Order: sequence, then C-alpha cells, then structure tokens
Amino acid sequence: MKNIEVISEGDAYSAVDLGSLNGWLDYSLVHPISKREIEGKVFLKEATKSTGTEISFNSIAPRSEVPYFHIHRKNEETYIILKGCGYFQVDEDCFSIKEGSVIRVSPQGKRGLTNTSDEIMTYIVIQSKENSLEEHTTADGERIPVEPKWR
Amino acid sequence: MKNIEVISEGDAYSAVDLGSLNGWLDYSLVHPISKREIEGKVFLKEATKSTGTEISFNSIAPRSEVPYFHIHRKNEETYIILKGCGYFQVDEDCFSIKEGSVIRVSPQGKRGLTNTSDEIMTYIVIQSKENSLEEHTTADGERIPVEPKWR
Repeated sequence: MKNIEVISEGDAYSAVDLGSLNGWLDYSLVHPISKREIEGKVFLKEATKSTGTEISFNSIAPRSEVPYFHIHRKNEETYIILKGCGYFQVDEDCFSIKEGSVIRVSPQGKRGLTNTSDEIMTYIVIQSKENSLEEHTTADGERIPVEPKWR
Repeated sequence: MKNIEVISEGDAYSAVDLGSLNGWLDYSLVHPISKREIEGKVFLKEATKSTGTEISFNSIAPRSEVPYFHIHRKNEETYIILKGCGYFQVDEDCFSIKEGSVIRVSPQGKRGLTNTSDEIMTYIVIQSKENSLEEHTTADGERIPVEPKWR
C-alpha cells in the first residue's frame, strides 16, 4: 500500500502528491465498516485537510467493475473519468463513459460503473453536501496583485 | 469555442462529455466581470446541475502562467494537476507541481500557478463552501443491491 506524500503545507493550504495516474491502483484502503481492503482507492480529505469536499482517486483493473452499487445520505457525487472506458448506471439508465466524461449524481441515485477496456480505468470522485454551494463561477473570487516567486 | 456535450440525464443525475484531456485548451469562457475571453477554461456547474461544487477543467499553454493571483470569499478550492509541471504559490510559499499533485487552498490564500513544461498543463479545480461537508469517506454511503444493465 502506497502512502500519500506531503509536498508543502501552510496556514492556508495543504499540497500532496499522488503520483502518476497509472500508479493509482497501488493505493488501497480498509473499508471502515466491512474491514475489507479496497484496492485502487484513496480518500484525500484527511491528507489535504479539506473542509468542503471528500475527493477520492480511484481505479478499476482492466475488464472489471466496482462490485456494488451505492447511494448517499447527504452528499452529491461527481465522477470524472480520466482513463479507460465502460458503462455508468444510475437507477434505470446505463450509458457509455470514457476519458472526459463527467457525471453528477444526487444522493439518492443508485450508481455503479464498469471498465470494459483493456487498460486501467482511473477516475476522480468528489463528494460535497447537496445544495451547499452559495457562490460559483468567478463570483466568489477576487484578483489580488502578487509578484510570483517563480520568476 | 467548443461546447459541452450532454451524454445522458435523469432525475438523479446529469452526465456530460468534455472530450480528451488534450482538447481542453479548445474551451474558453467570457469572464462575467472583465468580459475578457479566458482560453482553456470551462465551468461545469451549469452543465452538470451540481449543487455542492463548482468544478472547472483548465489548461495552460506550454511555458505560460495564469496571469493573476486570486483569493476567494466563501469557497475552498482544490487543484488536481493531470498533465504538465511547474510551480504553485500560496502566499509566500512556492513549490513544484506535476501530474498527481493535489493542492487544497483556504478562501483567503493568495494563489497562482505556472506551467514550465513544453506540454499543455491540464488541471481540475473544485470549489466548495468552506466547512460545508458533514459526512465523508464511506460514512455517507450505503450499498444497494442492483443488477447492472451492462452485463
């Protein structure tokens, strides 16, 4: 099991390194309830000290599927597919997914996915509390004059 | 300017296709305040009907930088670097980033980044309201028996 490397940390940020996309299958976690080891999955909330999201990096071995469907209680999920292709199902709808597919699922949607390709499927899942966002696009941001140190 | 393609949509989900990671530079948006066109950036909240996050797909041309630093009012941001390498700066700290780097920044952190590589830098930014998450890891989920339609 690979560990997450901390790159840098300060009062206003935490930066970590997960390594190349092809190496995500080396991560695993022990499910807190079933106590089973889940391969190819790593949660980031603790490592990055995030307070608004639980982001996970995930992978599915070639020609394999996530062996269960699930729902959520409070959290919306967004899936971002980075490699591989296959199918995603929410309730009665089943559709093709591939690199660049983004799927937002409400808490109550019964969701599952499969990788039908010969490569590892890698994808990111973002959990956030449904209806929690108040400001979006650029409305919440403000430009600040800073001289970059990299110059 | 490329448009986001809707793959499938239902009561509990919205699925869209952004295309291959190398094509993100073809997206652009007009900044609502400055009215300037920002190349290589696309916001997803409207397309995916998300309610807890504003996710953007972003790209920086080879040997280029985002031409401004910024802060946020209510939202935490998490940056996920998928391609390219360079530097990320928060306040006084400047550190290297590359594929697999994940940086969580508090609203008040003054942030900027640069791509020093010869390839396009592609990265995802996730905005969520600071301190909004109540349940995380697997605690918010519940497994549900479903017979996948892809079999």
